[in-house]
Amino acid sequence: MTETRAAPGELRDACIEAAREAIAAHGIECLSLRDVARRLGVSHQAPYKHYASRDHLLAEVVRRCFEGFAACLDGREHFDDPVLDLDSLGRRYMEYARSHPLEYRLMFGTPWPAAAEHPGLARDAVHAFEILRKVLRRLHGDGPAQRERVDLDALFVWSTIHGLVGVLGGSCADKLALSPQVMDQAMAHIMAKVRLGLGLPG
Amino acid sequence: MTETRAAPGELRDACIEAAREAIAAHGIECLSLRDVARRLGVSHQAPYKHYASRDHLLAEVVRRCFEGFAACLDGREHFDDPVLDLDSLGRRYMEYARSHPLEYRLMFGTPWPAAAEHPGLARDAVHAFEILRKVLRRLHGDGPAQRERVDLDALFVWSTIHGLVGVLGGSCADKLALSPQVMDQAMAHIMAKVRLGLGLPG
Repeated sequence: MTETRAAPGELRDACIEAAREAIAAHGIECLSLRDVARRLGVSHQAPYKHYASRDHLLAEVVRRCFEGFAACLDGREHFDDPVLDLDSLGRRYMEYARSHPLEYRLMFGTPWPAAAEHPGLARDAVHAFEILRKVLRRLHGDGPAQRERVDLDALFVWSTIHGLVGVLGGSCADKLALSPQVMDQAMAHIMAKVRLGLGLPG
Repeated sequence: MTETRAAPGELRDACIEAAREAIAAHGIECLSLRDVARRLGVSHQAPYKHYASRDHLLAEVVRRCFEGFAACLDGREHFDDPVLDLDSLGRRYMEYARSHPLEYRLMFGTPWPAAAEHPGLARDAVHAFEILRKVLRRLHGDGPAQRERVDLDALFVWSTIHGLVGVLGGSCADKLALSPQVMDQAMAHIMAKVRLGLGLPG
């Protein structure tokens, strides 16, 4: 593929794919527009038509992760009962984290590139958090008096599930001699504790 | 400093310090014994007297992080009341994570080097987790029938606090328009939710 044969939209998307491959292979630190161009077989200058810098490309990679993540959460099984809906959201979050480790790490485990230059990244990240806020507003109410409680509880729910992803995915957990029963029950146990923490039936 | 002038114990410790500096400056991927030797002004072969490979050095760096981390947790204010002691442990954990971001990332945010070759690393990691298990045994009881509950609750407590460290330290939280009140209360709120989750007074 050469830059003259690729349509502008194709090259824009191809750069994202090549960047993801480069990050998966060598880590985020080694990402460069030069390497992306080499992977695509285009000139060194070609990616600059769409991305002003390596950070602009990386920001778009991360933004698309949030877009896909939010779509995955929105695609969960919905329930009229917000307690069941919170559980469905938690399960979906865990499934996404397990099946998309690279995307998850880019969103939550590595510093973002200068995000101020890419308002779309912040917007799509806020949209993903807003899904959780909405479920908690259905539990607590939607008035200004409930805003602080909703945000604090959202931090609690997010921290607990995000923490479990990190703990079970990390190197440490393997060494703790946790029984298979404990590993099997961990997610359900933690969601029950989240419900109790929120004052709901465990 | 040259290899002939440094006592063996000094060089062993100096390699650890140089490795930490190299990781802080360039990331874990770039760590090499050659770079450590260059930083210390010793021959390329000198670090091999103490560390068979880059992974052996890295494993010892991470092991010492766990040693210091466990000592910090053990040095918390202790309480006879296990509910108060759990709170003290949680606060100490957060303080450590905030004041030692590099150590925290090495222990919990990056894959360990081939740990099987370094049993001391696993041992010191288990020791740190055991501190939390002990507090929960004081709450739930110490018999075999309580073992599973202790481990599941330990995962819940650890996940929640580890998750909050990641959420507040990540790039995403800045963009969520969380009020200063929410940020100030987050840790206390989450510890109250942990207590409720464990069936204790919030």
